[in-house]
Amino acid sequence: VLCHYRNAWNIDLKQRPTFLRGVMHRSGNKPQGLVPDIPLYMRKDLQRFASYCKVPIQAPSNLEAMFEKGLLSAMRFVTAVELHSPELTEQVSRVLWRRIWSKDQDITTPESLQEAGEKAGLPADQLQRLLGLAVSQEVKEKLKLVTQEALNHKAFGFPLIVAHVDGRPEIFFGSDRFELLAHLLGEKWLGPVPQETGSKL
Amino acid sequence: VLCHYRNAWNIDLKQRPTFLRGVMHRSGNKPQGLVPDIPLYMRKDLQRFASYCKVPIQAPSNLEAMFEKGLLSAMRFVTAVELHSPELTEQVSRVLWRRIWSKDQDITTPESLQEAGEKAGLPADQLQRLLGLAVSQEVKEKLKLVTQEALNHKAFGFPLIVAHVDGRPEIFFGSDRFELLAHLLGEKWLGPVPQETGSKL
Repeated sequence: VLCHYRNAWNIDLKQRPTFLRGVMHRSGNKPQGLVPDIPLYMRKDLQRFASYCKVPIQAPSNLEAMFEKGLLSAMRFVTAVELHSPELTEQVSRVLWRRIWSKDQDITTPESLQEAGEKAGLPADQLQRLLGLAVSQEVKEKLKLVTQEALNHKAFGFPLIVAHVDGRPEIFFGSDRFELLAHLLGEKWLGPVPQETGSKL
Repeated sequence: VLCHYRNAWNIDLKQRPTFLRGVMHRSGNKPQGLVPDIPLYMRKDLQRFASYCKVPIQAPSNLEAMFEKGLLSAMRFVTAVELHSPELTEQVSRVLWRRIWSKDQDITTPESLQEAGEKAGLPADQLQRLLGLAVSQEVKEKLKLVTQEALNHKAFGFPLIVAHVDGRPEIFFGSDRFELLAHLLGEKWLGPVPQETGSKL
């Protein structure tokens, strides 16, 4: 959604790979799985949101298992990309996101990261180098640092938006705060697909 | 917000007094108080939302105490109003809401309900009758029934919107789903204060 608005709102949009499990653990947050009606509702809400955003979302068949396995290797890979080929961060993130949320594919094994890198258009030699760098001390430390930054902003989950407005950080949690963000920025909110809804208004 | 859109969307808006503690208890939901950063964030988020909606919200100084004391008597009072003076349900609800969320005033004692009824413009004799009816078996049963209806829709908290579209109920939880509701109804979302934001678009 923010990519759609990058130009219209004149924002300097930066995507920061962070480690969800670290943030959940350190903030003491637990997945909302105990009340059976809540995930049931969230699934329905997500479907409606996806249809409105025109993004093909399909919840993974085994979300818990994937989060237990952990997204650490994937986030380290994206961190390596951000450090050494920043122009590709967005595309690599998008491919990984689609594997989880559209195609119900794994992103925890080395083979999965390899596939994702290829799909994102990384040349073979650059991809090998980045996959190697993903387990380097430099990348591990960088991911820890960015995750700690999120915790410093009192993060307890993702997605998290940190909007720097007049030198002050304003924190938004969730995928449904764009309208409030627009209000804060003094910009117009024309829905999640502004090209379409904008013309209707 | 829905009152603003009642005419523009041509919806048959009905306010249904329900018993929050009953729904939380029966669904197994617990207030999100364990992770300290979550209520902190929610308070900030609420302030921003209030400013955007131009509604004077000020969180009660002791929210927990009020919910422990329970809103049962207030909800029974509104149920009595709905049954016997339905044209006043909206105004009585609004006055009670303002007591909690704008003025940090009690709504649990008989004196508070009396004050709220007077403020809502109820004549003295009608108010006395309704306060008496609030503890009748008829009203107690009606409130149970409506709360059970919410539970049948898999409610786990409020606010809850049940939108009847083409004969099927669509459930929305929270005060931030109006844009999705508009999309479902095929109507235009012009923000929480359409008179103002509408003219800007």
